[in-house]
Amino acid sequence: MIIATDRAKRPSDFIRQPVPPAKQTVCPFDYGQEHKTPPEVLAYRNSGGRDEPGWRVRVVPNKFPVLGIEGTLNRQGEGMYDKMNGIGAHEVIIESPDHTAALSDMPERQIEEVLWAFKERVTDLKKDRRFRYIILFKNHGEAAGATLEHPHCQLIALPVIPKRVKEEVDGALLFYELKERCIYCDIVSHETEAGVRLVSETDRFAVIEPYAPRFPFETWIVPKQHESHFEESDAPTLQNMAWVLRTTLRKIDKVLERPAYNFIVHSAPVQDPPLAHYHWHMEVIPKLTKVAGFEWGTGFYINPTPPEESARFLREAGLG
Amino acid sequence: MIIATDRAKRPSDFIRQPVPPAKQTVCPFDYGQEHKTPPEVLAYRNSGGRDEPGWRVRVVPNKFPVLGIEGTLNRQGEGMYDKMNGIGAHEVIIESPDHTAALSDMPERQIEEVLWAFKERVTDLKKDRRFRYIILFKNHGEAAGATLEHPHCQLIALPVIPKRVKEEVDGALLFYELKERCIYCDIVSHETEAGVRLVSETDRFAVIEPYAPRFPFETWIVPKQHESHFEESDAPTLQNMAWVLRTTLRKIDKVLERPAYNFIVHSAPVQDPPLAHYHWHMEVIPKLTKVAGFEWGTGFYINPTPPEESARFLREAGLG
Repeated sequence: MIIATDRAKRPSDFIRQPVPPAKQTVCPFDYGQEHKTPPEVLAYRNSGGRDEPGWRVRVVPNKFPVLGIEGTLNRQGEGMYDKMNGIGAHEVIIESPDHTAALSDMPERQIEEVLWAFKERVTDLKKDRRFRYIILFKNHGEAAGATLEHPHCQLIALPVIPKRVKEEVDGALLFYELKERCIYCDIVSHETEAGVRLVSETDRFAVIEPYAPRFPFETWIVPKQHESHFEESDAPTLQNMAWVLRTTLRKIDKVLERPAYNFIVHSAPVQDPPLAHYHWHMEVIPKLTKVAGFEWGTGFYINPTPPEESARFLREAGLG
Repeated sequence: MIIATDRAKRPSDFIRQPVPPAKQTVCPFDYGQEHKTPPEVLAYRNSGGRDEPGWRVRVVPNKFPVLGIEGTLNRQGEGMYDKMNGIGAHEVIIESPDHTAALSDMPERQIEEVLWAFKERVTDLKKDRRFRYIILFKNHGEAAGATLEHPHCQLIALPVIPKRVKEEVDGALLFYELKERCIYCDIVSHETEAGVRLVSETDRFAVIEPYAPRFPFETWIVPKQHESHFEESDAPTLQNMAWVLRTTLRKIDKVLERPAYNFIVHSAPVQDPPLAHYHWHMEVIPKLTKVAGFEWGTGFYINPTPPEESARFLREAGLG
């Protein structure tokens, strides 16, 4: 990652397209439209039966999945190339029946239930031994790739360990072999002590701008206690995380005027035992810059905002 | 890369924001504004002296470089992290004095001179042994990261070999060690024979939609003769490439209605000797989809258009 300080940008320098509040149109994720989605796989409810209104959080298979759950991988050659079937699961976590709500505006308790849905779905899906990795993420706003306005997250279970995950886990292993310590534990302890890149902390989480961020205002939410798998988080951890995530999103909303963003849960491969060298965390990436030829060609990212500066802006936003 | 055929998209399904023709405003890349850029490092001219009007193609250092040319790398630790100075060169290749021209509309001869400027600048810069890699690319249209409308390409010389380049070169080496053949030579011969992913060919180049493209309508321009370094291309090759590039961009313009795009020259690390296992080529990426949480988290790309289909659309566009 290249910090280009000659190009240093303050929050106000970023071209802003605040994500507009959702328009109230009828959508398949609303109450009364449950028949328009595939049957639900999980719901937390106040009332109603399966696929009826009355739910608070609802999880359904994606109607247009990028991968299908049926069949076998069937690895094969095709001429000089290799291919396999797209086996996997693709689910949508509908965060609220309120079409116009934004996650950052929801009550803490609502966000906590979304996190519980993450945990429950991963725990269920990992029983299927074909799934090697499960990724949880949110695309918020059209610029961040969202195609539906109704607040939702997504989950994709994959039959292979993705390249980027493998690199991250292998990199952490290399550090562990050298030092016999988890690199993320080291980062948490270094950053909470130094403070320059620290956004906020609770007794359970540190929110930091990482040392060499790819993107301006890239923000990590890291549990202080070592744990390789997100789905092993206990109730008090999820409860605290809901508060931390809400506060962090609200800081970002305030400083960057409700930007589009992605968040991604980085967690260990689901079939692995607990790993001493890897540490789950969430990465939040406000969508402020465009990825262009240089980034595609090199895998390097040019970041006009040093993390010490973005951390200061987020700290000074208060709310936490 | 995941081809999601349930989500299959025809060209007309992509949200389109044609890149509008540039507005004629005075810009630092116009005739008479030469003093607003750093002094030129190369120009092909009809008339005038250094930093005067009369040029056809002009290369200048970027006024806001992502890396600076002065100093030493000075690798050092910072607490638990590593850093080095941002040594490098960042140049702008101004493709034409005509502010409103698009590369695809320029005469072949003009494009050929742009390619000559690429070759000359790389040949000059690689004499500086600090530079390990030089990347040539174009961002066309705001959605593809262009910040200036005046037609231009960019060059960045780097003190390290980028991660993605290393992966590509190492991958090609692995294939070579196994087969004693260059994988790109194999691809050219396979694709020109099979034809299903072939867009066009000349005696010197094959234009193909690669087998597992990350992006819809990702298009590769590959020289038929093995050569690891772009800058070793001879005059007839550059002349033919100008025709091929122009035709390819015009096909893309026609099928996708003048989309924003990036192109990137993939070439061997500049300090390496000629490599039997690596083969330079150009990748053209129309900007049709958004990169979202799944892609950031996994490094996998969901592509709604099989390459056989995009190849057919481009073939049928004629012009070649």
